Amino acid sequence: MTQTLDLAVIPGDGIGPEVTAEALKVLHRALEGTGVEVKETHYSLGAQHWLSTGETLPADVLEDIRGRDAILFGAIGAAPGDKRIPSGLIERELLLKLRFTLDQCVNLRPSRLYAGVGSPLAAPGEIDFVVVREGTEGPYVGNGGSMRTGTPHEIATEVSVNTAYGVERVVRDAFRRASLRARKKVTLVHKHNVLVHAGHLWKRTVEAVAAEFPEVEHDYLHVDAATIFLVTDPARFDVIVTDNLFGDILTDLAGAVTGGIGLAASGNINLDGTAPSMFEPVHGSAPDIAGQEKADPTAAILSAALLLDHVGQGEAAARIEAAVRADVESRTPGEKRTTTEIGDAIAARV
Amino acid sequence: MTQTLDLAVIPGDGIGPEVTAEALKVLHRALEGTGVEVKETHYSLGAQHWLSTGETLPADVLEDIRGRDAILFGAIGAAPGDKRIPSGLIERELLLKLRFTLDQCVNLRPSRLYAGVGSPLAAPGEIDFVVVREGTEGPYVGNGGSMRTGTPHEIATEVSVNTAYGVERVVRDAFRRASLRARKKVTLVHKHNVLVHAGHLWKRTVEAVAAEFPEVEHDYLHVDAATIFLVTDPARFDVIVTDNLFGDILTDLAGAVTGGIGLAASGNINLDGTAPSMFEPVHGSAPDIAGQEKADPTAAILSAALLLDHVGQGEAAARIEAAVRADVESRTPGEKRTTTEIGDAIAARV
Ligand SMILES: CC(C)[C@H](C(=O)O)[C@@H](O)C(=O)O
Ligand SMILES: CC(C)[C@H](C(=O)O)[C@@H](O)C(=O)O
Repeated sequence: MTQTLDLAVIPGDGIGPEVTAEALKVLHRALEGTGVEVKETHYSLGAQHWLSTGETLPADVLEDIRGRDAILFGAIGAAPGDKRIPSGLIERELLLKLRFTLDQCVNLRPSRLYAGVGSPLAAPGEIDFVVVREGTEGPYVGNGGSMRTGTPHEIATEVSVNTAYGVERVVRDAFRRASLRARKKVTLVHKHNVLVHAGHLWKRTVEAVAAEFPEVEHDYLHVDAATIFLVTDPARFDVIVTDNLFGDILTDLAGAVTGGIGLAASGNINLDGTAPSMFEPVHGSAPDIAGQEKADPTAAILSAALLLDHVGQGEAAARIEAAVRADVESRTPGEKRTTTEIGDAIAARV
Repeated sequence: MTQTLDLAVIPGDGIGPEVTAEALKVLHRALEGTGVEVKETHYSLGAQHWLSTGETLPADVLEDIRGRDAILFGAIGAAPGDKRIPSGLIERELLLKLRFTLDQCVNLRPSRLYAGVGSPLAAPGEIDFVVVREGTEGPYVGNGGSMRTGTPHEIATEVSVNTAYGVERVVRDAFRRASLRARKKVTLVHKHNVLVHAGHLWKRTVEAVAAEFPEVEHDYLHVDAATIFLVTDPARFDVIVTDNLFGDILTDLAGAVTGGIGLAASGNINLDGTAPSMFEPVHGSAPDIAGQEKADPTAAILSAALLLDHVGQGEAAARIEAAVRADVESRTPGEKRTTTEIGDAIAARV
């Protein structure tokens, strides 16, 4: 019996297409012999596409993507200096629009320090945690405005919107994931001493959901203190649950302490299966090194593993993760392999 | 001719009184022979005071403080587990109320890695930057709310309010400070690709003010990227200007990479002199080690130096800074001096 994995592929801009090609190579290799056939539909979207067409994410393309099983996303965004593209437009109208419209409420970001990978920390310890970042609420809702814009009397606001519905599903997912891990510990990160209303909603929700998971312990850190622990004792973390903006900040920092966001994978998970989930490296499109075979495709490859795990191919996902681990552990400081060489090497180990 | 420095002293809770005593000791020593007399008025405020009186910051006390030349603040806050005090109450009704009511719009937080101080970073490089954190706006305005609270339909919001007036004075202060430094560089940190309205107000303001300071260069980083640089290349920073919440996060992280917030000083500056400025260590009240002579008073002592600099005693401030530098550079890993011993040693070097 053959199954088909109907994949939407959005390679994007800059190094996106290069790293996505390697991720697909490894994904195909991992599925060999499993009876799963991959059907790929590639979508031309991103800054380049906008420059040539004026389109970000047309409604019919979005509906087409919605029908697929999962999305593999590369990276998007123009060069920082490119003034032709309004800043943040592609991020908001493509990437965030996908996350929000497809109700990808859990932005899942594992952080692991592989043996042999250089961390900027002198004594990193054993780092192996996962951030469950809320993906569809908080300060990301686009609910801001300005008046008297451009005058000395301008007022600009940004509204963080948080709902019991939105917070609870993410908190429950964090506890569920923690219950399946060895340490079984959830850390809520927020700033409830200042952001009282949103913070207390998060805190109360954690207390309530914790009662359903007596085997999982939980604690709380203000976001400022959490950044301290991420550089002084990252080994203390198991599962972090946090809001959209704090999660954005913490996962970039976590990527840095675990040897660079060239290794950081992520999944944007639709929890109820009403729309496809999306898997993407945490890094951006890095236009400065695009097309030069300099990008590390590991984060994209690990994102493909998260994708396979999500669609029920946990065994294939585990083989990719083991191959990445073996490859990463065999790297020597200063070695320069091309994007393709790294992809080939990992594929060969799968 | 004698001058009088009319000082409000708020020692606060936990280790606050211990470190404040050492800061005052060093401040007095630094002013010896300058002709400046210090008049101290101590205010009993904080979590303990609230527990015994139910008062946070009574109006008449606030008015009394308002008449002083400057405020030396220790640390406030109850033990994390103390359920008698509503979470965040003392922080908001005392500390933030002072910052807001006294219009302390620039929260100035220098970060310096002293020779010999252990950083958690393997190769920290030369770290010497200052964060100009906005202190009276942004997500700290307390402009949030919740409805259907405690039900599955709860909605909780937090509104970040930013004004051209509020942003501009802080940005101008950052450029002015940068123009007096060797590297003359300002980095704006925000998240304008997502927080469009607030972010663009900040960006436009930086562009406008930059035109007045042609000798100062400037760049921009998203807050997530800024945390990466703080651990991979903190030496790239000279003056960071950012909003209240991002500044809170970045300065704790900066404190950690420069060897711990036991060394991080701060000033809450009222720019137009309509009310006193307030100087405080970045660290909290650390109830777990209070009363044990274990707290490092260096951050409080450096805050006293910032205070002296602010009131026109730059020479005395420089002597404190030199004494701290000499003391810190003579520390040996693992040495255990008491709070008083450290204060005495620094005072002796002034
Ligand atoms: C590109 C940007 C909108 C995005 C975010 O802030 O979520 C990115 O930083 C990320 O973390 O995926
Ligand atoms: C105690 C708290 C309200 C405060 C803040 O968030 O500003 C503290 O973290 C700081 O940085 O001074």
